[in-house]
Amino acid sequence: MIVGVLGGGQLGRMLALAGYPLGMRFRFFDTAADAVAGHVAPLAVGRFDDLAALDRFADGLDVVTYEFENVPVEAARHLAQRVPVWPPPEALEASQDRLAEKTLFSRLGVPTTRFAAVDAAADLPRALDAVGSPAVLKTRRLGYDGKGQAVVRTLPEAEAALARFAGAPAIAEEFVRFDREVSMIAARGRGETAFYPLVENEHREGILRVSRAPAAGGGAESIARRHASAIMDAVGYRGVLTVEFFDRGGTLLANEIAPRVHNSGHWTIEGAACSQFENHLRAVAGLPLGNSAALAHAGMVNILGTMPDAARLLAMPCHVHLYGKEPRPGRKLGHATVIRESAATRDAAAEQVRAFLES
Amino acid sequence: MIVGVLGGGQLGRMLALAGYPLGMRFRFFDTAADAVAGHVAPLAVGRFDDLAALDRFADGLDVVTYEFENVPVEAARHLAQRVPVWPPPEALEASQDRLAEKTLFSRLGVPTTRFAAVDAAADLPRALDAVGSPAVLKTRRLGYDGKGQAVVRTLPEAEAALARFAGAPAIAEEFVRFDREVSMIAARGRGETAFYPLVENEHREGILRVSRAPAAGGGAESIARRHASAIMDAVGYRGVLTVEFFDRGGTLLANEIAPRVHNSGHWTIEGAACSQFENHLRAVAGLPLGNSAALAHAGMVNILGTMPDAARLLAMPCHVHLYGKEPRPGRKLGHATVIRESAATRDAAAEQVRAFLES
Repeated sequence: MIVGVLGGGQLGRMLALAGYPLGMRFRFFDTAADAVAGHVAPLAVGRFDDLAALDRFADGLDVVTYEFENVPVEAARHLAQRVPVWPPPEALEASQDRLAEKTLFSRLGVPTTRFAAVDAAADLPRALDAVGSPAVLKTRRLGYDGKGQAVVRTLPEAEAALARFAGAPAIAEEFVRFDREVSMIAARGRGETAFYPLVENEHREGILRVSRAPAAGGGAESIARRHASAIMDAVGYRGVLTVEFFDRGGTLLANEIAPRVHNSGHWTIEGAACSQFENHLRAVAGLPLGNSAALAHAGMVNILGTMPDAARLLAMPCHVHLYGKEPRPGRKLGHATVIRESAATRDAAAEQVRAFLES
Repeated sequence: MIVGVLGGGQLGRMLALAGYPLGMRFRFFDTAADAVAGHVAPLAVGRFDDLAALDRFADGLDVVTYEFENVPVEAARHLAQRVPVWPPPEALEASQDRLAEKTLFSRLGVPTTRFAAVDAAADLPRALDAVGSPAVLKTRRLGYDGKGQAVVRTLPEAEAALARFAGAPAIAEEFVRFDREVSMIAARGRGETAFYPLVENEHREGILRVSRAPAAGGGAESIARRHASAIMDAVGYRGVLTVEFFDRGGTLLANEIAPRVHNSGHWTIEGAACSQFENHLRAVAGLPLGNSAALAHAGMVNILGTMPDAARLLAMPCHVHLYGKEPRPGRKLGHATVIRESAATRDAAAEQVRAFLES
């Protein structure tokens, strides 16, 4: 089986590393010639609107999937005429537009933050009224890791923020004071669904720093599963879906979905019998899903911006995953995972790794 | 760091899959254009006696290693003039010739089977006298998985077997009645050594079928470690070394060494914090070694000759590793690993997997 992957970053790279032991082969499509999945599999370089390039890429593939959610939906739809594309382009489309995403949540009865569309500055008064102050103003599309966002308290602040978006359609959202951020990673195959345990995520400056699993808090687990199932049902999903939630006193508010494997699931490589990467591939290939239960307590720490000394890093009691990327401020260069017998020893080990990485 | 690997079979493939998360890149050299490591990294196809091809291959590499022990020593020595080659070519040389190997064992005080050189039919009477009857007559070079071997009881039988070897230099060995076969896999870095727990191996028709680790039997463990250390010391070793032993009532007789990762260590991918593949790469790259302790009880079953149905295999409670090879009788196509909390549940699970694979 040959799997085509749209996008060639670290998620694609880890998909390939998980899929080779299943006997799969891979081809990647990316706009950048130095995309790091190209270290581990053939990489086609092209534009996502170059239909001829997409056709050449599709030739001989058994299934197509994606490893980042900003693949143009038109590219996925075009490929879907020739080869099965999973997750379905509908899920891609919903994940690309914060308004469509939150509208989907609302339609399905999945609690989310209050929100209102902002197509132009004239919409701001009504929108701020609807979501309250402070509000978070976000571009509807192409935002990630905290980019294209602003917390605003007044109409002039909102107008200034919207001006910085340079005319991009926006959304105003309630500013949520939450206790923690959690994510549910679920894999849907041909009918069956595998849920990973709920993950607790720690962000700073909009970038994920540390994930811990299984997250404490029994009730949230089953609620998150139910919400993820509802979303997968609604779009005829196949593959791994990640749903990020704000947890406010046990109430989960869906923040966003990613129709792909997710940074908050990297711990599953060592922390679960079958990783999110392997289960995504099993799912899109129509194969039985693997066991998603946690083997122990896992902590994952992102390696951001600068490369630590390799010898010192490898002497730490953790699993190291480097992505082969050139260092650049804020860039995700790798991650390190600790697996321990208890949450307390896991937290201590993760803290030790983080302290080293930030030293 | 770019690692060059001589040989492009499944061992090389698994080396690359273990090395990518360390940020390493790989290039393989093999005589076969369809070598399966070529699915996961660039593959140079050439003859091992083509020095110009080896030079082109070496260009830009940081270190060279091998994934099978029948690489001509001259090729390793030639490359060693340009780039570090680990394990040392001396270890490769000893492993290629059963007489040199057993002579090394004897010199180091590592118990082995009685043996005698057989360069020609005229040597047979003396050799059979020395090792007793029955004896095992083997070619000194290029034997593996039971090929190039014969059990002989009489001089005429020995002469007939030698004739089938077509003039290849041979060795006569004592026919050992043993309780079990075990292997010690050790990694030697810059000074430090990591030992995996002793593995118990089950062969049939000269081919490894099942490995179980940690093997029972406390005394054998430390003896095997001592013997492996003596061999590594003697040749200035760096990398993973495998030593296979016959266990006869607690006495270990060294049978052979492999200067590489080994089929009996595949369980370490899931069964140890740091696999034999990762530790081999850490060792040859001069990086700190990883933790080689067993996480639980592991059983590995080889997938031989015919491909099982993928969906049924992936529904089994085991970790699946397929090598991307075309099926052929007796060929190693993959392996499956079970990890369990006790030796008893491990044995039951491994038996279930084996029964499925042989059904």
